[in-house]
Amino acid sequence: MRYSVFAGGKRLRPILTLAAADAIARAAGSSSTVALDLSLPAACAVELIHTYSLIHDDLPAMDNDTLRRGRPTLHVVYGDGVAILAGDGLQAAAFSILATSPDEDDPELARCKLRVAEVISRAAGPGGMVGGQAIDLQAAGQVPGHATTLDREGLQGMHARKTGAIIRASAVAGAVMAGGGEGQIAAIDRFATDIGLAFQIVDDILDVEGSAAELGKTAGKDAAGTKPTYPALFGVNGSRMIAADCIVRARLALDEAGLAGWLAPIADWVVSRRS
Amino acid sequence: MRYSVFAGGKRLRPILTLAAADAIARAAGSSSTVALDLSLPAACAVELIHTYSLIHDDLPAMDNDTLRRGRPTLHVVYGDGVAILAGDGLQAAAFSILATSPDEDDPELARCKLRVAEVISRAAGPGGMVGGQAIDLQAAGQVPGHATTLDREGLQGMHARKTGAIIRASAVAGAVMAGGGEGQIAAIDRFATDIGLAFQIVDDILDVEGSAAELGKTAGKDAAGTKPTYPALFGVNGSRMIAADCIVRARLALDEAGLAGWLAPIADWVVSRRS
Repeated sequence: MRYSVFAGGKRLRPILTLAAADAIARAAGSSSTVALDLSLPAACAVELIHTYSLIHDDLPAMDNDTLRRGRPTLHVVYGDGVAILAGDGLQAAAFSILATSPDEDDPELARCKLRVAEVISRAAGPGGMVGGQAIDLQAAGQVPGHATTLDREGLQGMHARKTGAIIRASAVAGAVMAGGGEGQIAAIDRFATDIGLAFQIVDDILDVEGSAAELGKTAGKDAAGTKPTYPALFGVNGSRMIAADCIVRARLALDEAGLAGWLAPIADWVVSRRS
Repeated sequence: MRYSVFAGGKRLRPILTLAAADAIARAAGSSSTVALDLSLPAACAVELIHTYSLIHDDLPAMDNDTLRRGRPTLHVVYGDGVAILAGDGLQAAAFSILATSPDEDDPELARCKLRVAEVISRAAGPGGMVGGQAIDLQAAGQVPGHATTLDREGLQGMHARKTGAIIRASAVAGAVMAGGGEGQIAAIDRFATDIGLAFQIVDDILDVEGSAAELGKTAGKDAAGTKPTYPALFGVNGSRMIAADCIVRARLALDEAGLAGWLAPIADWVVSRRS
């Protein structure tokens, strides 16, 4: 578990959690420090869930990746069995954190913690990340007797579940823990939906253009396999335009809700990143 | 997920949850029906977690079992990738249930739900089930560069985590949801600790004595591998005596706390079962 959690990584999801909490506090004129303290456990939980999903995704039975964040993947070092268990343990640990932290006996806080546990568990589960990965496996022809192909809608639906759902849940969790109103939470959710899609599109582009040295993982994997990607469907330039549109919509959602702070710069980073 | 959840099985863990809730209600002279309603979501959650652990445990990278509950294991039918994801999805679904059900906006109920989510996530995680499975993998020589051997204490510690923790959590969850006092919850926990150990010892004995037809899974697996077992350490008769002692202690814990109902008969079934 430590090998993979402390391998580095962009920490996009927990940063979104904290930035969303901060944005809610700014809008209310309340303490950002308190909002960050309240949302930090959820930020940790989403990163643990993200890390578990990478460990399982890298397994030979799934994407069969041997390099991640510039290091051999967990199963290469400790074997597939330990990698499966480490992922399982990280998911359980995420929900332990959500159930117990912040550790204050306050009815309103308890309500927020349960809501965040609901949001994150649904985003991680069969209706979200795990369901998206199953669609991905099928589209890659890796499910005996259940091969499918994806069109544009199918591809978007797959990404909305596989990577989008947890990115949305990460931001929503921060907004909920900071005491955001329903309108604010919905705006953060719309923002994160577009950020998540843009993030995935850029991921696909970088896989075509990037080098393993920059990415810290094997480049060209998607094209080498039979995986559906944005560049394959829309070309690199077309994909860049779709990603840019997402960012425009994401920033608009923030503006309309009067939310400021780190969220807009994160949106810009998502499309400008090189790795 | 459906293939494995609805494959049958003994349903010991959810039955323990419901029986514990019922015992608390009987002791309080309150409604068993209400206690069962309150604890049913937790009962479902522990069964989903148990099912996920069986799916992952059966994978080639772990125990490499091809038969479970009289049917081909999930990975044999849908491939390893889907089996990994189905297990992951079941764990997430378990925590969705715990976060959302029973769905009433009551501060005391919210406190109970968070406590149960904590108890179950810790029992499922690295300090419990997943940690025990990792010890088991190591002892079976399946972790590159990390082989170990287990003595009696090591074997008990492994089982306490691998199977005992979730069995305890199952019973405790029922007691908590039914509004049990701390003394009652502790008694239920002691009861379930001994039940869990007895259950595992009998499992080991059945693996030596049983047939695949009776067990619904491959018999003789333990001896065929290098896995440490009770019969290997204490013989079949010695193991039976240890299990019988557990049941005596378990019933004593109930008697001392004045808890009646289905729990004692469950204890008797645990040592008398043939599959």
